[in-house]
Amino acid sequence: MISRLLAFAVPGLPLVGAGDDLAALVLDRLAASSLELCAGDVVMVTSKIVSRAEGRFVDLSLVTPSVAAEELAREVRADARLVELVLSESVSVSRKRAGALVVRHRLGFVTANAGVDLSNAAPPTAPAGSGPWALALPRDPDASAERLRRALRADGALAVIITDSFGRPFRVGTVGVAIGVAGLSPLVDQRGERDLFGRVLEHTIAARADQLAALSDLVAGQAAERQPVVVVRGVDFSPVDGASARALCRPADGDLYA
Amino acid sequence: MISRLLAFAVPGLPLVGAGDDLAALVLDRLAASSLELCAGDVVMVTSKIVSRAEGRFVDLSLVTPSVAAEELAREVRADARLVELVLSESVSVSRKRAGALVVRHRLGFVTANAGVDLSNAAPPTAPAGSGPWALALPRDPDASAERLRRALRADGALAVIITDSFGRPFRVGTVGVAIGVAGLSPLVDQRGERDLFGRVLEHTIAARADQLAALSDLVAGQAAERQPVVVVRGVDFSPVDGASARALCRPADGDLYA
Repeated sequence: MISRLLAFAVPGLPLVGAGDDLAALVLDRLAASSLELCAGDVVMVTSKIVSRAEGRFVDLSLVTPSVAAEELAREVRADARLVELVLSESVSVSRKRAGALVVRHRLGFVTANAGVDLSNAAPPTAPAGSGPWALALPRDPDASAERLRRALRADGALAVIITDSFGRPFRVGTVGVAIGVAGLSPLVDQRGERDLFGRVLEHTIAARADQLAALSDLVAGQAAERQPVVVVRGVDFSPVDGASARALCRPADGDLYA
Repeated sequence: MISRLLAFAVPGLPLVGAGDDLAALVLDRLAASSLELCAGDVVMVTSKIVSRAEGRFVDLSLVTPSVAAEELAREVRADARLVELVLSESVSVSRKRAGALVVRHRLGFVTANAGVDLSNAAPPTAPAGSGPWALALPRDPDASAERLRRALRADGALAVIITDSFGRPFRVGTVGVAIGVAGLSPLVDQRGERDLFGRVLEHTIAARADQLAALSDLVAGQAAERQPVVVVRGVDFSPVDGASARALCRPADGDLYA
């Protein structure tokens, strides 16, 4: 049971580029503020800073769109080089119309533009005249989270969640969701009660990693690149190995809205 | 900017029934723990405890299903009296199949079973042999939130959000969402940047009230009826009058998944 939860942003993180050691930067910035990570902390990290550290920058001026991307780009009225990049990150198109392209990402989740980010997407050392730049999601966010987990605390006694901000069907505005998880189970089975359908209520499974991602998104706030790492203290969880954000993705054949 | 956020559950709230004064109970339980509400706090309240206090109990044994409800109940393999209640709370059916009935609620959001709750749904004084009982969502959650806001602090210098736990397309598990809001804007426009579509990025609008609801759902935890009120301290918001959770509901004609 959680009775008290504290969330704070890691202060003063710099704009990172490819190859920067994110864990070392976080530990350094915490120490500079006389803060430290405790056993049981959950460290929330935006996908953007992970992508930047992992060098997932794409210079769209160097992308050659396929014929299919050119066609789709005309249909949704977007830059064909962006559409090419989005398709290369996706397994299928979920919905499309002028101004909107929602895909099922190769990592299993459904989101607009495959999570490709166009704001603050240039590398720190971008040559003059290069770009426009785009930033793709980390290649394997679960693995990124696990690396950070071990690097932030050698005994692994914390959890790391990599987050992105997703739009949603039916609801206005974005919330944070977990796209990479290490150290805690992303789902919590709550009660196992049965409803009048005679079935175990789906509502008894809480998407804990997404709840945490929504919280960290709130704290990361108006300039996600300035507060990209948030520590959550007070989450009551049992450490696990082998966690994956895939558990949060409903397969297309089990989805009423696929 | 939020740099530090604290969330705590109001301890020791009793199981409430119709007519109970929720605000008085919350203030009493806070005082008993030497806690108090501060200006700028956001008080998160589950719909279940609001519904109970407002007497939204329905004895399904007294419900007579319509012919349409009987037909739909056969199709989704559910109790026809429950389906009747769900339809009476809804404006349209969004998706249906055996074991699942997703509707657009009269309040504008899309959710399973119109948010009708079957667990811990009986009134404290239910006569022997009555039921099964169901609990409908509050009639006007924005108004409920506004009443609580004024009752919890006469100067209105706090916000109140009424939450429910929703399942979601594409993703496994539930998260909290805001179904009633008073005192703060449920959406935050973040940056107004433009993407390669030339449009203002939808991703610059954060669903703050839903982020907060996800957080409180996490704290309310495994027995939502035991920690149904959570106080969040440190949210940086400007007090507003006339807020509504309707702003979080995308109209069907603007929704790719309607």
